[in-house]
Amino acid sequence: MTRKQLIEQIKLKKSYLCVGLDTDINKIPNHLKTHPDAVFEFNKQIIDATKDLCVAYKINTAFYEALGLKGWDAMERTVNYIPKGQFIIADAKRGDIGNTSTQYAKAFFETLHFDAITVAPYMGEDSVKPFLQFENKWAIVLGLTSNTGSEDFEQLKVAAQTIHSTESSIKDEFLYEMVLKKTSWWGNINNLMFVIGATKAADLEAIRKIIPDHFLLVPGVGFQGGSLKEVSKYGLNRDCGLLVNASRAIIYASEDADFAAEARAIAQQYQSEMAGYLA
Amino acid sequence: MTRKQLIEQIKLKKSYLCVGLDTDINKIPNHLKTHPDAVFEFNKQIIDATKDLCVAYKINTAFYEALGLKGWDAMERTVNYIPKGQFIIADAKRGDIGNTSTQYAKAFFETLHFDAITVAPYMGEDSVKPFLQFENKWAIVLGLTSNTGSEDFEQLKVAAQTIHSTESSIKDEFLYEMVLKKTSWWGNINNLMFVIGATKAADLEAIRKIIPDHFLLVPGVGFQGGSLKEVSKYGLNRDCGLLVNASRAIIYASEDADFAAEARAIAQQYQSEMAGYLA
Repeated sequence: MTRKQLIEQIKLKKSYLCVGLDTDINKIPNHLKTHPDAVFEFNKQIIDATKDLCVAYKINTAFYEALGLKGWDAMERTVNYIPKGQFIIADAKRGDIGNTSTQYAKAFFETLHFDAITVAPYMGEDSVKPFLQFENKWAIVLGLTSNTGSEDFEQLKVAAQTIHSTESSIKDEFLYEMVLKKTSWWGNINNLMFVIGATKAADLEAIRKIIPDHFLLVPGVGFQGGSLKEVSKYGLNRDCGLLVNASRAIIYASEDADFAAEARAIAQQYQSEMAGYLA
Repeated sequence: MTRKQLIEQIKLKKSYLCVGLDTDINKIPNHLKTHPDAVFEFNKQIIDATKDLCVAYKINTAFYEALGLKGWDAMERTVNYIPKGQFIIADAKRGDIGNTSTQYAKAFFETLHFDAITVAPYMGEDSVKPFLQFENKWAIVLGLTSNTGSEDFEQLKVAAQTIHSTESSIKDEFLYEMVLKKTSWWGNINNLMFVIGATKAADLEAIRKIIPDHFLLVPGVGFQGGSLKEVSKYGLNRDCGLLVNASRAIIYASEDADFAAEARAIAQQYQSEMAGYLA
């Protein structure tokens, strides 16, 4: 999907909601647990109930890999079931040396038909760039994440140094700011987004100075304690520039047979609020 | 596998060789390309030809994921085919927020029967620790990698700061040194190893001061330009403490029908040299 197509969908649906399919076989409603194709059936009903309210689905690959072959199969069929017009994200946090990253890109962009994959930046340029070589496909690179562990490395101050840049030195930046800056040179706003944890909404203002035009994927709105209002206030740009993800808040809105209707109700709340911020 | 068992295997075989199964369907010998089960058949012959010369196999998951369901299936059967006594590594570079990392750990330690998985440290403590909660299983955390992109972030100097440590401040360390130090507090020498790129053998001496006792997984000896002699000189400790990986140098030693015999011949060269360093 192109940036233009994504923005059109956002305007059409008045929504920048991404529904996270972190489908955990142990958390789905009891009546589905014994279904022979439980994960796919659950996803199917969630997709049917939310597809007019969101512009993206994010599949957390770990939950599918944990089920082995059967899980990988359910993931593949879920991707194929998601309707055209949706931006489909593999939340896979991949990243390796060049030829290996290329294999991951093939796995998610060609073998599976995802539009985007989340990428871990630790290994640097040649681990990220292979994901940027596929037409109308996207890398969504980890910037600042919403977990407490983000303090360990992402929020370390990196010392002044000369880097390959028009600037001759960079001082006292957080590692994640350096990641945003350097990574943004490797791609462009048409093939690169960043993961920015919503629980740090106050940091969004500073982040928008570094990357004013890129789309940001914001997880953690919902059970991880983020605020949609704050995220929207500091994160929205003239093209929207946000995909706000909610996973558990939507897909586990109810443990009972009404889970899809309840998921829709919660998605509707997100969408209504978003329509207001977009107006 | 326990540390004790691994060390016993190393002494028994006089080898700390890890054979990397980065099996690329486009690079296997022509006579196998049309085999209905080409990847598994290739792996099987490589394993049969090298199993008495190495103590570990490392499966690069990207190459299997690129083939979709069929690849995942070949990976599963390869893991099950590897003989007892081998240390089996999923080179998967996973890492995510806590509950997602737990799902990845289940995928590779329970659903598949790997002994270890490589882990990307960017997201910090709660992304790494879930991999350390499985008995006799290992996380192998990325420290310093062998690719040129390691300069972008891994080799950034991180500024002085107070951290949760007996030391009150740390100055002018590389990010990867901070990763080694902090991560080593989260686990111990029985459940944690580090990836250290062989092309930086000169740095190994400094690294051994930070983590004298941990096992290091050293990729990049072979086509990535490392030197087994240097790596062994600076990396070996009293328990060996090294797993040196060779992938392409061994598995693509020949493009012809004799590939397994040629793979064995190269593995034999590594093993002979290693026996000398262990003596």
